[in-house]
Amino acid sequence: MDQIKTAILGASGYTGAELLRFLAGHPAFRVTALTADRKAGQPMAQVFPHLAALTLPDLVSIDQVDFAAIDAVFCCLPHGTTQEVISALPASVKICDLSADFRLRDVDTYARWYGHPHQAVELQKTAVYGLTELARPEIRTARLVANPGCYPTSAQLPLIPLLRAGLIKADDIIIDAMSGVSGAGRAAKEANLYTEVAEGIHPYGIAGHRHAPEIEQGLSDAAGRSVEVSFTPHLMPMNRGMLSTIHVRPAAGADAGALRSALAEIYREEPFVRVLPEGAVPATRNVRGSNQCLIGVFPDRVSGRAILVSAIDNLVKGASGQALQNMNLMFGLPETQGLDLQPMFP
Amino acid sequence: MDQIKTAILGASGYTGAELLRFLAGHPAFRVTALTADRKAGQPMAQVFPHLAALTLPDLVSIDQVDFAAIDAVFCCLPHGTTQEVISALPASVKICDLSADFRLRDVDTYARWYGHPHQAVELQKTAVYGLTELARPEIRTARLVANPGCYPTSAQLPLIPLLRAGLIKADDIIIDAMSGVSGAGRAAKEANLYTEVAEGIHPYGIAGHRHAPEIEQGLSDAAGRSVEVSFTPHLMPMNRGMLSTIHVRPAAGADAGALRSALAEIYREEPFVRVLPEGAVPATRNVRGSNQCLIGVFPDRVSGRAILVSAIDNLVKGASGQALQNMNLMFGLPETQGLDLQPMFP
Amino acid sequence: MDQIKTAILGASGYTGAELLRFLAGHPAFRVTALTADRKAGQPMAQVFPHLAALTLPDLVSIDQVDFAAIDAVFCCLPHGTTQEVISALPASVKICDLSADFRLRDVDTYARWYGHPHQAVELQKTAVYGLTELARPEIRTARLVANPGCYPTSAQLPLIPLLRAGLIKADDIIIDAMSGVSGAGRAAKEANLYTEVAEGIHPYGIAGHRHAPEIEQGLSDAAGRSVEVSFTPHLMPMNRGMLSTIHVRPAAGADAGALRSALAEIYREEPFVRVLPEGAVPATRNVRGSNQCLIGVFPDRVSGRAILVSAIDNLVKGASGQALQNMNLMFGLPETQGLDLQPMFP
Amino acid sequence: MDQIKTAILGASGYTGAELLRFLAGHPAFRVTALTADRKAGQPMAQVFPHLAALTLPDLVSIDQVDFAAIDAVFCCLPHGTTQEVISALPASVKICDLSADFRLRDVDTYARWYGHPHQAVELQKTAVYGLTELARPEIRTARLVANPGCYPTSAQLPLIPLLRAGLIKADDIIIDAMSGVSGAGRAAKEANLYTEVAEGIHPYGIAGHRHAPEIEQGLSDAAGRSVEVSFTPHLMPMNRGMLSTIHVRPAAGADAGALRSALAEIYREEPFVRVLPEGAVPATRNVRGSNQCLIGVFPDRVSGRAILVSAIDNLVKGASGQALQNMNLMFGLPETQGLDLQPMFP
Repeated sequence: MDQIKTAILGASGYTGAELLRFLAGHPAFRVTALTADRKAGQPMAQVFPHLAALTLPDLVSIDQVDFAAIDAVFCCLPHGTTQEVISALPASVKICDLSADFRLRDVDTYARWYGHPHQAVELQKTAVYGLTELARPEIRTARLVANPGCYPTSAQLPLIPLLRAGLIKADDIIIDAMSGVSGAGRAAKEANLYTEVAEGIHPYGIAGHRHAPEIEQGLSDAAGRSVEVSFTPHLMPMNRGMLSTIHVRPAAGADAGALRSALAEIYREEPFVRVLPEGAVPATRNVRGSNQCLIGVFPDRVSGRAILVSAIDNLVKGASGQALQNMNLMFGLPETQGLDLQPMFP
Repeated sequence: MDQIKTAILGASGYTGAELLRFLAGHPAFRVTALTADRKAGQPMAQVFPHLAALTLPDLVSIDQVDFAAIDAVFCCLPHGTTQEVISALPASVKICDLSADFRLRDVDTYARWYGHPHQAVELQKTAVYGLTELARPEIRTARLVANPGCYPTSAQLPLIPLLRAGLIKADDIIIDAMSGVSGAGRAAKEANLYTEVAEGIHPYGIAGHRHAPEIEQGLSDAAGRSVEVSFTPHLMPMNRGMLSTIHVRPAAGADAGALRSALAEIYREEPFVRVLPEGAVPATRNVRGSNQCLIGVFPDRVSGRAILVSAIDNLVKGASGQALQNMNLMFGLPETQGLDLQPMFP
Repeated sequence: MDQIKTAILGASGYTGAELLRFLAGHPAFRVTALTADRKAGQPMAQVFPHLAALTLPDLVSIDQVDFAAIDAVFCCLPHGTTQEVISALPASVKICDLSADFRLRDVDTYARWYGHPHQAVELQKTAVYGLTELARPEIRTARLVANPGCYPTSAQLPLIPLLRAGLIKADDIIIDAMSGVSGAGRAAKEANLYTEVAEGIHPYGIAGHRHAPEIEQGLSDAAGRSVEVSFTPHLMPMNRGMLSTIHVRPAAGADAGALRSALAEIYREEPFVRVLPEGAVPATRNVRGSNQCLIGVFPDRVSGRAILVSAIDNLVKGASGQALQNMNLMFGLPETQGLDLQPMFP
Repeated sequence: MDQIKTAILGASGYTGAELLRFLAGHPAFRVTALTADRKAGQPMAQVFPHLAALTLPDLVSIDQVDFAAIDAVFCCLPHGTTQEVISALPASVKICDLSADFRLRDVDTYARWYGHPHQAVELQKTAVYGLTELARPEIRTARLVANPGCYPTSAQLPLIPLLRAGLIKADDIIIDAMSGVSGAGRAAKEANLYTEVAEGIHPYGIAGHRHAPEIEQGLSDAAGRSVEVSFTPHLMPMNRGMLSTIHVRPAAGADAGALRSALAEIYREEPFVRVLPEGAVPATRNVRGSNQCLIGVFPDRVSGRAILVSAIDNLVKGASGQALQNMNLMFGLPETQGLDLQPMFP
């Protein structure tokens, strides 16, 4: 089979680099275009010296790309600009968009949280939300996949199956989530300097983070009713990794053991989601650099409560890894192709 | 006034070193004995080279100390052994115990959580729980103060006043707490190696951490009824710092603003507790190395909920700083003496 | 005595914050003006929340300061602009300049390394280079002290006395130095993001760092001849701390022991410089947050060589601490006033 | 071809885990035995949860392994015990030893540096020192390869070709090297706790590190005369990575450019060694997790000197990666098989 000619838009950020790390070992995709507006003209070896051993095209601006010669596009652009760019792509191109631009089905919700009207309302209707394990059939036939956010991935993988099965109550879900700094991207901001972040932690976007409506959309679908969650993200002094500690109320008759069994059953055959046995605790160090998601379920001391814990690498299962997993499906390739790297520890 | 002759028992650990850092600038206390069983005979400059500029006694074993010549004892021993050691001290000595050995009033609760019967039941009755801001009168006249644990300090400072005032419900309190590694002490354990901890996070002791009953004791007193909490600690890749994100339900008629106002009023004159204005977020970097506690209050998106966030340095307000604060009170000294160091950032 | 009315120019950077940390405990200086051009109008509690417990004036722009009402100025501005600003200050003001602008006596050398002509040639002649321990008499009577760079401080403290005494050869000095990230300041640069720095190291400015001529100026003075050094700085994944590993050739008849003895003798009474006994190794963790400098001397396996190691906190003895030490001298105060804080470990 | 039945001895340490990470993607080697004396009986998923997705044999003690059914042994045992263990292996087994036990040809040098007589003097004579790029013919036919130490790898790759070519002087080589903490292994030691290491740096083993004679053996061979080096290792607050900053004197007629050209020519076709163009600086973040070695060459300001900088991942090219590279050669496999993973950044 011919290799799939692949473009990465916005390749000078961390998710772009991470895609290239995985694509380097993938037999089917061949990277033929890399774009970055401000760094157009630069070789990738300058922008990301850790990739200098790869043979890669130089960065160009988007308008320099001949998309007629492209089969697959990974879009790593900032939200807002993405809608216009993707609208302009030829129909022959399959797209996985890592921005937030096509994740919210309801364009009014989008407008409310992102502060401007949606720029591609019709296209939005065709977009498939790419939480891979829970939407394979739709992803396989999609032209445009909206790749989930990192926090939504870590929260929905444990929660959605439990809501679908009616094993937890939908009206009292509390998510305390913690992310490594790479989630903030590569833009030069004072708040993300080493000196501002190292050796300290803090919450941010309390009750106002844009991943909240995305989580709620998925949970509402699963519950068959409108779900609102308490969601508090925290910034961690580490490059990668995301942990969500989620407080739920098991439905009548269910307990933590029942929740764990149900999740274990649902994810039994999954290559990338592992429900840990009783007592084992998810830790981000055990998924670092890999596409894995670890889930643990624990009884709480407070009666009527249980605690779910999930761990992913925010740049992999929370971004580029899941994007490649989706693109594999979109092109009829084995889902794990290029993604079977083990976690790196220490 | 003569200087207060002071001993630190278990001075080879981090809380011992931290006490010495603060006592170095304190005019009233003079350190005349330092003990460490396994390191007895070593000079402090060898055990803690960062203190080499201080003139300090060499480490000795406890039985080498003439406690008749000691006025004040900071006890930094591991739990379990502490009860016996403190029982044997002469009545003339005032004691602040940083272990967990005298924190739980109910000796049966102690036995259940610590796995052995309490060794000093009578002495326990005289111990005062030293959450300074909330127990000053008792601390001033105490001979033995049980210094609160780090997690309990960070949870109780925001919660107790709200429970006392009936501003939050007592039956649905969820605490997700995060601590730097120094809380695990200086013992050589694989789990606390740099390579095991750096660049990763994980929860531990889920629903089974020994600080849970300590928190519940304080909250139950405040609420006037038995309170059970959901408490999940997490290990953070940083030396110091502790953050608690606490989910509460305001009582009928109250909201986040009311909670904030109440806390601000109660702590208005406090030198070490600061309730932040609306929107400002507590971060551990802003208290690093200091005895300060920052508290923020936030409305949640989920109706009927609010979020409290507190930040302390686990080794200072969560251990040695609060111990000195208590000892200042016990000796009738200004409460802030020796403790007026600013946080160190970055 | 009246308090000394003190201004900090460029107070929104790390050296400004560090000065405030030390001045908070200083009885003689009273901070009456803080400037920051881009952040003028903001309260310090916003710019540096860790200092929110202090009562401090809001940030203003420099032209808003009435320097007639100022006795002492700490200048923390970027190089280049500093010369003009300081030239405009009234003669009544004593100044300690933390920039590089007045460190090089030779204005041609300045022009060559900094890429523009010196803007205050006459003022330069009056500036005293403030390596405190080695220039006390001049500093005491100076109006303008050029505070040494961090690397030059760490290199010159061990080297100058040995060159003065003729104990090492002047023509083969190799300095491999390592610095925490705070040395790069608080400006938002991609290269200093947490994600770019954490968990990695690299050299920079190899053979071209601007601290080289500053080091060479001091060493040349000490040796009585022109000295050129090999100087390679490295960026370390830590907030603070600086270590210099320095390779020297003892003069005929001298060895590492002789070097150590000579340094120990010269610094015997120094409050902030400590020459370690044989075998003890300087580590930055042992000076973190303090004004101390540790020096170790080691025989090399290669005959005819010895190794000097010095450790400082780059923000303290390498910047703000030494600045305050100098200002204490300039105002006839005890040299250690405000600076007697112990290192913070862990 | 049948898969190569492979044992890892001492598989509970970091080098063992790292071998498994690479072997997981290797088509030719099949891991059939894993040993760890103290952890015998445990499943790998317990010892290294990050590898839980792999199907691996449980840990056993060495005497439980049937070495008649083993083709290849990676030996990751501590030095000292290794000589006896390897002596007892059947002749049919090919061995790559990651300890220091067979690296020094001269058994008297071994005895002097390691404090006990060599236990396998005859076997030593057959061991090949496995610095892959520089010893391929011998490695291909070896039964026992002594895998180089991390520091020696980082120092010898740039130095040996230059000494062989007579382009640098052999009598004035100074190596300042810096390593991540994983080089210290997984043993629980106070000195390697997160709290002791994070946010600080220090040299260690100054002029006495056991890698010095290993480096000197290789350099002496290359120079055709006895070479002594100045070697100072430093501990860095990071999991992985090693940087060597090496000071040399170019021979008459040579300069930094000539050195760079020579190295670039020698390593032109190498898959894992990259000589950077003029001005580009090696950084450990650019090799993290990969088998790559980056080399930079810089002119010094001091006339007659040049600076070499090399960067590797101490656990990969400095240990397990090079071991697999060697084993590939020993079994006639493509040298890069299993090793073509890109660096992970950030």
